[in-house]
Amino acid sequence: MTMEYVKEIPSKAEAFSDWYTAVCLRAELADYSPVRGMMVIRPYGYAIWESMRDELDRYIKRTGHSNVYFPLFVPRSLLEKEAEHVEGFNPQVAWVTHAGGEELAEWLAIRPTSEAIIAEVVKGWIQSYRDLPLLMNLWNNVVRWELRTRLFLRTAEFLWQEAHTFHATEQEAADEVALGLEGYRSVAEDWLAIPVIRGRKSRAETFPGAVYTDAVEAMMRDRRALQAGTSHMLGQNFARSAGIEFLDRDNLRKNPYGTSWGFSTRMVGATIMAHGDDAGLVLPPNVAPHQVVVVPIFRDDEGRAAVAGAIERLEGAFAGVQTASGPLRWKVDWREESPGFKYNHWELRGVPYRLEIGPRDVAAGQAVLVRRSDRAKEALPLDALAAELPGHLAAYQAGLFQRALDFRAANTHHVDTYADFKHVLDEDGGFLMAPWCGGDECEKEINADTGATIRLVPFDSPDEAGTCLVDGRPSERRVLFARAY
Amino acid sequence: MTMEYVKEIPSKAEAFSDWYTAVCLRAELADYSPVRGMMVIRPYGYAIWESMRDELDRYIKRTGHSNVYFPLFVPRSLLEKEAEHVEGFNPQVAWVTHAGGEELAEWLAIRPTSEAIIAEVVKGWIQSYRDLPLLMNLWNNVVRWELRTRLFLRTAEFLWQEAHTFHATEQEAADEVALGLEGYRSVAEDWLAIPVIRGRKSRAETFPGAVYTDAVEAMMRDRRALQAGTSHMLGQNFARSAGIEFLDRDNLRKNPYGTSWGFSTRMVGATIMAHGDDAGLVLPPNVAPHQVVVVPIFRDDEGRAAVAGAIERLEGAFAGVQTASGPLRWKVDWREESPGFKYNHWELRGVPYRLEIGPRDVAAGQAVLVRRSDRAKEALPLDALAAELPGHLAAYQAGLFQRALDFRAANTHHVDTYADFKHVLDEDGGFLMAPWCGGDECEKEINADTGATIRLVPFDSPDEAGTCLVDGRPSERRVLFARAY
Repeated sequence: MTMEYVKEIPSKAEAFSDWYTAVCLRAELADYSPVRGMMVIRPYGYAIWESMRDELDRYIKRTGHSNVYFPLFVPRSLLEKEAEHVEGFNPQVAWVTHAGGEELAEWLAIRPTSEAIIAEVVKGWIQSYRDLPLLMNLWNNVVRWELRTRLFLRTAEFLWQEAHTFHATEQEAADEVALGLEGYRSVAEDWLAIPVIRGRKSRAETFPGAVYTDAVEAMMRDRRALQAGTSHMLGQNFARSAGIEFLDRDNLRKNPYGTSWGFSTRMVGATIMAHGDDAGLVLPPNVAPHQVVVVPIFRDDEGRAAVAGAIERLEGAFAGVQTASGPLRWKVDWREESPGFKYNHWELRGVPYRLEIGPRDVAAGQAVLVRRSDRAKEALPLDALAAELPGHLAAYQAGLFQRALDFRAANTHHVDTYADFKHVLDEDGGFLMAPWCGGDECEKEINADTGATIRLVPFDSPDEAGTCLVDGRPSERRVLFARAY
Repeated sequence: MTMEYVKEIPSKAEAFSDWYTAVCLRAELADYSPVRGMMVIRPYGYAIWESMRDELDRYIKRTGHSNVYFPLFVPRSLLEKEAEHVEGFNPQVAWVTHAGGEELAEWLAIRPTSEAIIAEVVKGWIQSYRDLPLLMNLWNNVVRWELRTRLFLRTAEFLWQEAHTFHATEQEAADEVALGLEGYRSVAEDWLAIPVIRGRKSRAETFPGAVYTDAVEAMMRDRRALQAGTSHMLGQNFARSAGIEFLDRDNLRKNPYGTSWGFSTRMVGATIMAHGDDAGLVLPPNVAPHQVVVVPIFRDDEGRAAVAGAIERLEGAFAGVQTASGPLRWKVDWREESPGFKYNHWELRGVPYRLEIGPRDVAAGQAVLVRRSDRAKEALPLDALAAELPGHLAAYQAGLFQRALDFRAANTHHVDTYADFKHVLDEDGGFLMAPWCGGDECEKEINADTGATIRLVPFDSPDEAGTCLVDGRPSERRVLFARAY
């Protein structure tokens, strides 16, 4: 039973994509639905989403933003007001044409994002510099009709947060773009243990209608890149096309500067792909629905009674134990299944620690704590567990982050010629730091040749004179290339 | 300024509907949108929704349900599987017919509710009695194309929770229906201070596709009824039409029994209409975004400094103060506006208490606490506030509930003849407890004649022999009639 159960997940190294899908389905994170490209998020997957959502929501509120709600539908005429915006999103829009038994006079888009309708509405709210900044956030669902979909990573409907803000000055808006990005960095690194690189998107990858787009980019275990959040400087674009004007302190009427930034359920997929292994999920303790699962081990009623007594005493000791992500989340698996079945069940679900307790352990006043990532075992005194677990969980969280950081470092390559670029990409994949002239054409050619895209012009990469991979023109710094999700 | 500001809200007694809309808009709870019948929920309105949502979410999780997500779209063929269900919802459905630049082969309904798609998906999850009960909850948005809309109360799109559960036996499903209803009773009464009557809907008011519908019903300040939550026994209807079967302990294949229950943003509207007065909102402390607002009063820098010092000391004292709904939520209004402007501003927003502090108060070591509902003033020692406020807030919460209960009692009438029924309804409105034979025709006639509907057959009304208002046939107990939102 045990081995069969494990064998149903394909090897991560051999078939990463199949491994990913199998983990999503077998760990009951998600399921397919009768609607093409749309997924069902099951309890365990939704609990992981709730954890990162709540952590980001705390950041959003702490930094002065208010949650609000705007309509699901965007009238076609509004979506079309900002020219680049409509051009970028039109091919992916789902349209409502009939409602209430009648054909609609104007088609309604299911929001692919809410810039257009928000600009139209806040026109009535922003009259004076006193009404600024306007700092809003929405938790909602959006629809983008994707041709090729994948659970969590790319779905025709997804859940996300979209922040929308308006400011009196360009500098304030730029600071806000950075503030949004910092929220994504902190949730990715400090909550999900996924190291990210911060930087600016190339023009080709900029949000339709934005002046620039900043992003955080992470490396998955197959060495591909995944965009973990984007923060857009909209400048005065949407404000101008919607006609938003405010009277400034200097008595002049001006268009405010806008930003928007978003973070979605694809980060559940990122968490799976950044840490998982052949046994399934490996969840960082901060985001794990259960941090510790106790597996009682016994052969007879006497043994069961001894173990149950010890677990009852643990209940008292664990009450009130605090971890970095709140009260200790633990449960006991009393199901009538073998210990081996239970080990696999909770390993598949990525529970950070399991605690094995048998009658002999109880007699010795101890239990065996097994760490998910490497199955390292440690016997701990039962009466020390409550005091030890928070530290163990914190160390495990830090360890997963460091492991991901080391993995990224080991798979990041500096290359200077196009031949090297192609060779390294094919042999090894990973992140390629390479010189680029800044031209759209060279970017397009590299993508067409290799499937890699410019993920970011990293904020932290130093000035370094070089020559563009493709056309040999001067490059001032290396940019980050990778094949990406 | 002050009086003009107040005067912009119409009198509640003279024009309740205009009063309601003015409060929603002026207190910045909500706004209209460019999409017909769809609203924008602004920060203050959304914070009130978040409070009741979180309280209900705690109940839902405490009682063993898991949050999940299902697609926004329901293929037409699925919606049509349950005959009564599609007949009930079809007229209100919005349809997606085009997506990704193409016409769809099958139209997709924007979910008006999710029974149909859930039944189809869980068919793959429910194989054995071991898979039951399946206890799920969704927080999402739904669309029902309404002709006449009103902010919060009836909108073409609304936010809600919809719980969906499956059980091996009818009794377990019936218990679940009651459990859902109890959640709504507790949020309405204990959180929103709105007393409710529990009971069963008549056949005409039963959810399309359900065996029966239970509901909680509340009285608004204009004496109309408002349905505050519904809980449906779906029996085996959806399971049968979707073909869900499980192998029971007795080795027979059976259809599970389903329930669903929902609670929506209309309860923000109910909170306004159950407690508000001519100055605006009156919020129960449990749901109020701010429970106390401090208004500093001073004429010069010296006065300001004295007041600021006292408020700084309050900050220390208030840290860690717990109320029935978590840490004390308070803020200081340091805006450069007159005290009168601020009083009106926070009264309009229904803040339970304002605290006036001037230099003379500081010298006397006190502050003046003003209660929103009746503007009762009380001088309290500054160093007693932290200890006194939780009790004050709890008493205020209980007082609002009792006031609403008294109001309902004063406006509930027992009538025995149709003439009396019409007379009392026209003169006074309110809740009418009257005999009914149980016939659809009599119910329809009363509605056509008077605009009143049967709100509930209350669980708590005693057996009482009588004769039906309309056709004189025997009635076993009184049922609750009212004009309703």
